[in-house]
Amino acid sequence: MSEPQRAPGGFPVVGIIGGGQLARMCAGPAVELGITLSVLTEAPDASAALAVPSAPVGAHTDVETVRAFARGCDVVTFDHEHVPTAVLDALLEDGVAVRPGPQALLHAQDKLVMREALTAAGVPCPRWAAASTAEDVTDFAAEVGWPLVAKTPRGGYDGKGVLVAHGVADLEDWLARAADRGEPLLLEEAVPFVREVAVLLARSPSGQAAAWPVVETVQTEGICTEVIAPAPGLSEEAARRATAIGLDVAAMLEVTGVMAVELFQLEDGSVVVNELAMRPHNSGHWSMDGAVTGQFEQHLRAVLDLPLGSPRPRAPWTVMGNVLGGDHPELYPTYRHVMARDPELKVHLYGKGVRPGRKIGHVNVSGEDLADLRERARHAADYIEGAVLE
Amino acid sequence: MSEPQRAPGGFPVVGIIGGGQLARMCAGPAVELGITLSVLTEAPDASAALAVPSAPVGAHTDVETVRAFARGCDVVTFDHEHVPTAVLDALLEDGVAVRPGPQALLHAQDKLVMREALTAAGVPCPRWAAASTAEDVTDFAAEVGWPLVAKTPRGGYDGKGVLVAHGVADLEDWLARAADRGEPLLLEEAVPFVREVAVLLARSPSGQAAAWPVVETVQTEGICTEVIAPAPGLSEEAARRATAIGLDVAAMLEVTGVMAVELFQLEDGSVVVNELAMRPHNSGHWSMDGAVTGQFEQHLRAVLDLPLGSPRPRAPWTVMGNVLGGDHPELYPTYRHVMARDPELKVHLYGKGVRPGRKIGHVNVSGEDLADLRERARHAADYIEGAVLE
Repeated sequence: MSEPQRAPGGFPVVGIIGGGQLARMCAGPAVELGITLSVLTEAPDASAALAVPSAPVGAHTDVETVRAFARGCDVVTFDHEHVPTAVLDALLEDGVAVRPGPQALLHAQDKLVMREALTAAGVPCPRWAAASTAEDVTDFAAEVGWPLVAKTPRGGYDGKGVLVAHGVADLEDWLARAADRGEPLLLEEAVPFVREVAVLLARSPSGQAAAWPVVETVQTEGICTEVIAPAPGLSEEAARRATAIGLDVAAMLEVTGVMAVELFQLEDGSVVVNELAMRPHNSGHWSMDGAVTGQFEQHLRAVLDLPLGSPRPRAPWTVMGNVLGGDHPELYPTYRHVMARDPELKVHLYGKGVRPGRKIGHVNVSGEDLADLRERARHAADYIEGAVLE
Repeated sequence: MSEPQRAPGGFPVVGIIGGGQLARMCAGPAVELGITLSVLTEAPDASAALAVPSAPVGAHTDVETVRAFARGCDVVTFDHEHVPTAVLDALLEDGVAVRPGPQALLHAQDKLVMREALTAAGVPCPRWAAASTAEDVTDFAAEVGWPLVAKTPRGGYDGKGVLVAHGVADLEDWLARAADRGEPLLLEEAVPFVREVAVLLARSPSGQAAAWPVVETVQTEGICTEVIAPAPGLSEEAARRATAIGLDVAAMLEVTGVMAVELFQLEDGSVVVNELAMRPHNSGHWSMDGAVTGQFEQHLRAVLDLPLGSPRPRAPWTVMGNVLGGDHPELYPTYRHVMARDPELKVHLYGKGVRPGRKIGHVNVSGEDLADLRERARHAADYIEGAVLE
């Protein structure tokens, strides 16, 4: 595997496993920081492969491929959480700096491991249970009532691997497949949340940590479609509590890099942890334009153990709208239109082909009038997708 | 020459001739816009070649090389102004969209052509003359007095190609070399300016134009070392006049892309044009962090005839400090230090080896207290260079 070309002056190479949009969006900050990126990509036309000079193609599941890739890098980090622990352990044996490390990452890879660790540490979670049999399900349902939420512990994303079950019959197939895989399902109570919020932070190997303001995330059919930074109407006390959960979890698990903690907020204002992600996250895309330090720059700084940048917002409000694949594949003409309509709009596209529901870009807009910003972000995202005909 | 890989969705390829830091700093915005960059680079380790996936090596003076490069691009633009007019004319014959076009660009390539055009249009300039002989010089000196400023019409940058002459003897060598080249020298009066300011704007082929606030530029030994945005104490009227000069010149010359007009401000507040640059410019680096739309994003939008973004500042003040090569080649440790000292600092490095006086990066810092920002930008730039030992 050919090694990436280094910049002079002692600047390091950061290797990212996975060629998706999260790796892609590290490209700009890396250029400004003078750092070289190398991306181990699934395909030569993957999102990040179109954005960086060094993008060798290889499987993240193949230990020798990943070891060869890591030899050209000073630090290895991730676009996604699907690299097997055995592969990561092999890198550690080679002396590679893997950030976040396999033991931390496991808590983002396996939701059962996450629930066990957070519960043991007293972090507020929904009630949950591991279930291998129909009896396990009915026992848990007797405790929390129907409907309940079933999750595959590994491999889910964007609402995939999550099922709202209204009776044990809904879970027959899932239980059979879980038995085939030899792992239980995770069952969780259906929390009566009033909204979803997220804490995004970065933590470096030295232990420095910096958290952005808590944001509100809006999901549509399990996919994040809008983020409002900061979360409207969140009390200072609630924001402090949520942030403290994030910082405590990061420290406890020795997370390095950016971590997102997705939370359910309940009617009484309290929060419980929904999911963890140990990488830049959709809930932090607003920070690219809305904060002094965006999440992709901060992730690079954190995994390199560079001093972290200020997460201070640049404006009272920033709204992010996700652009999802729609019916029309030609994005360039529609994006032209939204640029003309709104010169303050920041458009971010991922170089990905359109498939219905696929995340293909996002827009950010910052200012003082939240209702206006939400309307503008929504219109722009809809228009680029082709959902608005006006 | 292998063609760059296109993103799906109808997105174009922008070709940049020249692999310097101005091409490099287009990389991040291009990624976000979903646009593919291809850079015709002097060397495989040039500043921009370390930042983009497609960077064929070739000479910008060789017409067949440039024609082959342009075949893979929808639009061709520039990192520098040194591409010969004959090469650009060949591209036009091939039907390539060259932006800015050769006729506009000529006014940034040849200072005599620029002076003739601006004077004919009534744009305020220092008094000037073309000089081929010692008599020409003494005639002009009789009019404007000594010292006067001599410039080679073509090829100068960062103070090179500029000489302050205190008598005709100072210009003997320059006159001889000018005679060898078969072109006159440009002589200009030494304007008694109180400071230098610059207008930066973008103009698209459709004629849309957007100007950033007028900035103050501080030069040290002919090299820009600091930019303050906006220019402190500039009256609204003076800012409007300066901006109007820029917009008029851009429209008159049919400039496309970003253009900088460097101006001398006189004691009475009026301004005269010093130089033109038809590309992103050092006086606009502050906009990368300090404005809603940075100059590199805007340049790409302008040359693609996309709607222009808002040039609105994000903060009352932004100060840019250039990082020049000093005595120590290892920048990574010193830049670590400035990040720790100032979490709000935005560091931009160019991936270039250190040579004394060479522009190797810059820092931006935005806020409300100008004196504080200037101190922080200066300290950071000095420290990265190795000029501060504390």
